Parts: sequence; structure tokens; C-alpha cells
Amino acid sequence: MKFNNRNVHLGSNVHIGKNVRIGDNTTIYDNVIVGDNSIIANDCVIGEPQHAYYSQEDYTNPETVIGADSFIRSHAIIYAGCTFGKGLNTGHRITVREGAVFGTNCLISTLVDIQGNATFGNYCRLYSNVHICEFSKLGNHVFVYPYTIFTNDSRPPSNNYVGPTVGDYTIIAVHSVLLPGVNIGSNCLIGANSVVSRDVPGFSFAVGSPAKVTRDIREIGSKEKEGSQYPWMYNFERGMPWQGVGFDAWSKQQINSNAS
Amino acid sequence: MKFNNRNVHLGSNVHIGKNVRIGDNTTIYDNVIVGDNSIIANDCVIGEPQHAYYSQEDYTNPETVIGADSFIRSHAIIYAGCTFGKGLNTGHRITVREGAVFGTNCLISTLVDIQGNATFGNYCRLYSNVHICEFSKLGNHVFVYPYTIFTNDSRPPSNNYVGPTVGDYTIIAVHSVLLPGVNIGSNCLIGANSVVSRDVPGFSFAVGSPAKVTRDIREIGSKEKEGSQYPWMYNFERGMPWQGVGFDAWSKQQINSNAS
Amino acid sequence: MKFNNRNVHLGSNVHIGKNVRIGDNTTIYDNVIVGDNSIIANDCVIGEPQHAYYSQEDYTNPETVIGADSFIRSHAIIYAGCTFGKGLNTGHRITVREGAVFGTNCLISTLVDIQGNATFGNYCRLYSNVHICEFSKLGNHVFVYPYTIFTNDSRPPSNNYVGPTVGDYTIIAVHSVLLPGVNIGSNCLIGANSVVSRDVPGFSFAVGSPAKVTRDIREIGSKEKEGSQYPWMYNFERGMPWQGVGFDAWSKQQINSNAS
Repeated sequence: MKFNNRNVHLGSNVHIGKNVRIGDNTTIYDNVIVGDNSIIANDCVIGEPQHAYYSQEDYTNPETVIGADSFIRSHAIIYAGCTFGKGLNTGHRITVREGAVFGTNCLISTLVDIQGNATFGNYCRLYSNVHICEFSKLGNHVFVYPYTIFTNDSRPPSNNYVGPTVGDYTIIAVHSVLLPGVNIGSNCLIGANSVVSRDVPGFSFAVGSPAKVTRDIREIGSKEKEGSQYPWMYNFERGMPWQGVGFDAWSKQQINSNAS
Repeated sequence: MKFNNRNVHLGSNVHIGKNVRIGDNTTIYDNVIVGDNSIIANDCVIGEPQHAYYSQEDYTNPETVIGADSFIRSHAIIYAGCTFGKGLNTGHRITVREGAVFGTNCLISTLVDIQGNATFGNYCRLYSNVHICEFSKLGNHVFVYPYTIFTNDSRPPSNNYVGPTVGDYTIIAVHSVLLPGVNIGSNCLIGANSVVSRDVPGFSFAVGSPAKVTRDIREIGSKEKEGSQYPWMYNFERGMPWQGVGFDAWSKQQINSNAS
Repeated sequence: MKFNNRNVHLGSNVHIGKNVRIGDNTTIYDNVIVGDNSIIANDCVIGEPQHAYYSQEDYTNPETVIGADSFIRSHAIIYAGCTFGKGLNTGHRITVREGAVFGTNCLISTLVDIQGNATFGNYCRLYSNVHICEFSKLGNHVFVYPYTIFTNDSRPPSNNYVGPTVGDYTIIAVHSVLLPGVNIGSNCLIGANSVVSRDVPGFSFAVGSPAKVTRDIREIGSKEKEGSQYPWMYNFERGMPWQGVGFDAWSKQQINSNAS
């Protein structure tokens, strides 16, 4: 049904890996690298020229890298100058501006809007309609739930941008706002509809507007078994690298492989 | 201006009713049924193949049904395996994942994002940018205002999804969040920017984060006449089945026709 | 890379100014005027026919005006019957319904959703995913940050729509809601995640749900220098008409030119 090679346009110096499928009406601009076994579905724009393209005659499109084994659903707009590790998975109609750097195995869901110049670790999941501002830094395994906004200007409008930082394994529930420059530690849970205005130490559950730390995450019970739900890595493994082996065993492997 | 039959692609076993118009650049995939007198505008994707399409060689696209007299505005993405009763009306750029089942005469406005596997009664209205999670159940005549989010995971990330349930004639104002598994009764009004964390009994006005019941809806005055505004069906009829006859007369007809 | 004149379709009575570039897959419908030196990027729809087009055989598309020196990024949908002053600048995937009237040099960012029949002064900036309802009135130099919603129905659903009004130089931070009919004065700052339910006098900082005035904006310190940050026009000039001359000097010029 798809992949009829209708209206597919590739720019110059586009490197397409082995076993890649490109959907109808998709345009890939100059200097894009697509890793092996990837699928780029219909109506996508990969390597969208940056603003300078419109005014500079000698403009060269910066390199864009889509890792191997990626799956980009339809109507994505990904700017030139972005890098995605292997195993990228997207929803529909994502927009990613220039200078976004993603680790491996990230999820970017439908309607996510990334302003560029931000960094993401491995296995991050950005759910529907999340908005990430410039200069944000997300660690590994950070999950951001729908309609959450990262902000970087504490005296709008100003020229003083400081993005939020979020530590590994932290979960941010729906409809929250991270104010400029906040530093959320690792293994935190931010409750729905929160406004995070101050730093949050690791292993905290914070909620409210402004968000206040009300508990240690290890005090939050599971709905599926006895005991606590957090750290969540002991209770959730679908799509995570510890699937089938358990979080502790995987963590030891990581430490050993880093040490060798 | 439209309907020039440019770049229109129909899959196999597509049943197009009488007097249907299909806009330019629209793709309809296999096994879609479009009812009589419907309009599907430009750049739409109807019957989008589900994820299994990309990996299973023997994939068959599930049936998708668009009821008669529907009007789908441009850039819709509707997955295979959805069913819409007659009189569907949409804004632009809606996304509806597989397994969504809508009654008749529903409105799905611009940028609405429906995650699939959810059920909707008749005459529901989802306004701009509403996000409906899997396993949500909406009754008849439920109005959901912009940027409201339905959620289903109370210990994110977990494998334990329970969607919200909303009763007939209930109104949910802008920028609200329904937490997993909440049950909102019939004839309720949820105020703007609320987080609904507990069940709400019928005929309640609830507001806040967390939302608290502050009044009976029948105590809320109208701005257009003396007396109360709610239940709203006595004060609003545009596009509703009781238009011209009044809510009580229509209700009696319904009871009689159900009894016969 | 762009502007290959592929699948570009122009309706009748379309007036394209000098030195205009139109991207691939863009459709411009009847009776659109595009000012000199403008760029309309790929996959845009300009002059989208109004609803009556689908039912009235003698439908004529109302005039749409895009001012000179405009830059419209890809996938815009702009309805017939809108007017934009010179220097319009947009993100991707904006949707503007009929009857929106913009002054000069406005910014409409990615995913902004404007319901039409609203007026905007000069140099307004609507950031990502802002939603503007019908009958809204924004003055000059109004900045609205991501995911903020303007609303117009205080007894939903009703037939009594009254939009918000926002004065010159007012800044509305992310994720806020303006309730129907509120009147926010000039030189205000509304904090993140606020719900504005009552009128806000000029020079106020208001925040919360419901928003309360907590300070005079002139009491809010700058992060970049000693003294106050607001009124912001003394501390921010990028893209503003006082760039290089200063706000006071520019204001005097304005007064003089209005008087002559």
C-alpha cells in the first residue's frame, strides 16, 4: 500500500543504508544519512533547510543523521543538523528544529515540537504534544507525558535563555511546566499539571503549582503488586534494554562493559 | 478549486458511496467504506495501515468505516480499524489511531489526537487539540474543550491502563486533565484547568487541581436569560437532534422509539 | 533544494508580487494577494475555501492578503478572508481560520491554531501551539507563550461568545488560560499556568488559578542587569521596531509621525 516511490525526492549527497524504505511524497534534502533497516514513512521532510538557506546563496545544508533501525511515521519535519541514534521511533507530525541530539532508542510521539539545540540521552520517551525548548538537557530513560512544556526564558522576552535539566529515569506526568533552568534530579516523579519552579532532588515525588516535594518516590505503592512502584525500572521493562534480564542484571552488565 | 482528482490514490476493496467528493492528494488505503454524500478534503489519509503492516508480509488492512454525510477537513490521519457513524465532522490535521469507535454526528476539531481503542457516543464534540487516551469511554453529547487530556496510567510507566469514563451530556472545559480511571457522571460540568482525580457524581460542577465539587450544576445561572444554564440542553440546540423541537419533546420521542 | 515548481497550483485572480518564491506542493486558491519579496514554503494552503464552498454553487472565495516581506514556513493552512500586514513570519503547520486580521511583523509559531474572526496589532508574537478563539482582540507587541488558550464561552455550550482583550506590550506566559471576556490591560505580565478569570489592570503581574495580581511589573528585577526587567521594551529589542534606537526614541518618532 505504501512505498510506491511516488513523489519521493532525494537531494544530493544523501546516503541511504541497506534495506531502507521511503514512503510516498517524502523529501530528503542534501547531506542526510539514513541508517540500515530504517523506515521513513509518507509525507516526511528530512533535513529541512535551516533559515539561512533562504538568504545565503552559498548555503550548505548541515549533516543530518538518522540512526539504523529507525521508524519515522508520516508527516515528520526534521531539520538539517539533527542527530538521532539508532532505533528512533516517532509518531505523526513531529517537528524537530536544528541541533537536536538524541541518543539511541528514543520515542518522539505525535505532534511533539522540539525547538532544537537540546540534548537527549538514550531511551527517552516524549509523548504526544510535548514541547521542548532550546538548551534543554534530558538524561537517559526520561519519560515526558503529553502536553508538558520545557521553558527557558525566566523574564520573557529576554535574551537570557537557560533550559531545564532532567536526570536519568525521571518521569514527568502530563500537562506540566518546567520553568527555566530548573534541575530535576534522577529517579524523580513529577505529578500531573505541576509547575516546577525550583530544583528537585533525586528520588523525589513533586507535585503542584509551584511543585513541592511531598514524598520519596519509594513510598509510592504499586497498583499491580505489593510494595513500591518506584524506581519504576523494577516494574516496567517493555522496550527497555533490561527487558528479559531485569534491571539489576542489566545495570551490572553496563558497569562491566564501561569498565572494560 | 478542489476536487481536481490530482494525486488521489485508492487502495483495493475501497467502497465509495454515492455523491462522495475526495480532495486532491488524498490517499484511501485498502478496505475502507465511505458512506454516501461524504466529503473527504485534501491531503487526507484514510485507513492508515497499522504497525503490523511494516513487519508482516501477510498483513491485511482492517476495515475502516466512515459514515454517510461526513465531512473530513484536510490533513486528517485516520487509521485502519476505526468506525465513525454518520455525520462525522472534523477540523484539520486530526489523528485517530486504530480501534476508535464513534457514534453518529460527532465533531473532532483541529489537531485532536485520539490514541485509539476508545469509544464515543453520539453527538460528542472534541474541540481543538484534545487528547484522548486508550480505553476512554465517552457517552452521548459529551463536549470536551481545547487542550484537555484523558490519561490512563496512574503509575507511569506501567502496564496497567484504565481510561476515564464520562457520562452523557457532561461538559469538560479547557486545559483539564482526567486522571486514570476516573468516572465522571452524567450532566456534569468540569471547570477550566481542572485535574479530575476522583469520581464526580452526576449533576456536579467540579473545579480545581484536584477538582472538588463546589455546586450542583443547576445552581449556575445563565448569561442569556433568567434561571439556570444547566442542564445545557434546554438552552443550546445548534446542531443537536432536538434543534427546533426542544429537548423534552425529543427525549420523549427517543423513549417512544426505543420502546417500540 | 526547494522552489522546484513541483505541484504548485494557483487559483484564478491570484496576485503574486515581485520576487516571491513559492515552495513545492503549495496551493494558493482564488483571490489571494501575496506581497513583494515574500516566501511561501512547501506544502502550504493559502486562501483555503470557507465552509460555504462545499454547499454553495455560486461561492466566491473572499480576498486573502499576505503582506510584503512575509515568510510562511511549510504546511500552513490559511483560510480565505484573512489579512496579514507586511513582515508576517510563521512556524510550521499553523492553522488560521477566516476573518483573522493581523497587523505588521507578527510571528505565528508552529502548530498555532487561530479560530478566525480575531484581531491582532503589530509585532504580536504567538508561540508554539497557542490557541486563539473567535472575537479575541490583541493590541500591539503582545507576546503569547506556548500552549496558552484564549476562550470565549463562559457557559459552555452557549451562543454567547465574548473573547478576551489584551493591551499593548502585555506578555502571557506558557500554559495559561484566558477566560471569556477578560480584559487584560497594557504592560502586564501573566505568570505560567495561570487562569485569568477577572480583569487585570495595566502594569500588573498576575499569576495563579484564578490569577491574582501580586505585584507591579516594575518591581520584577532583571536577570541581566541591575534594576527592573519590566516594562520589557527597555531591555529587549531583537526584531522590534526600536532596535538600535531605543524604545523612548522610537516612541517619540511614533508620536511625531502620528501628529504630522
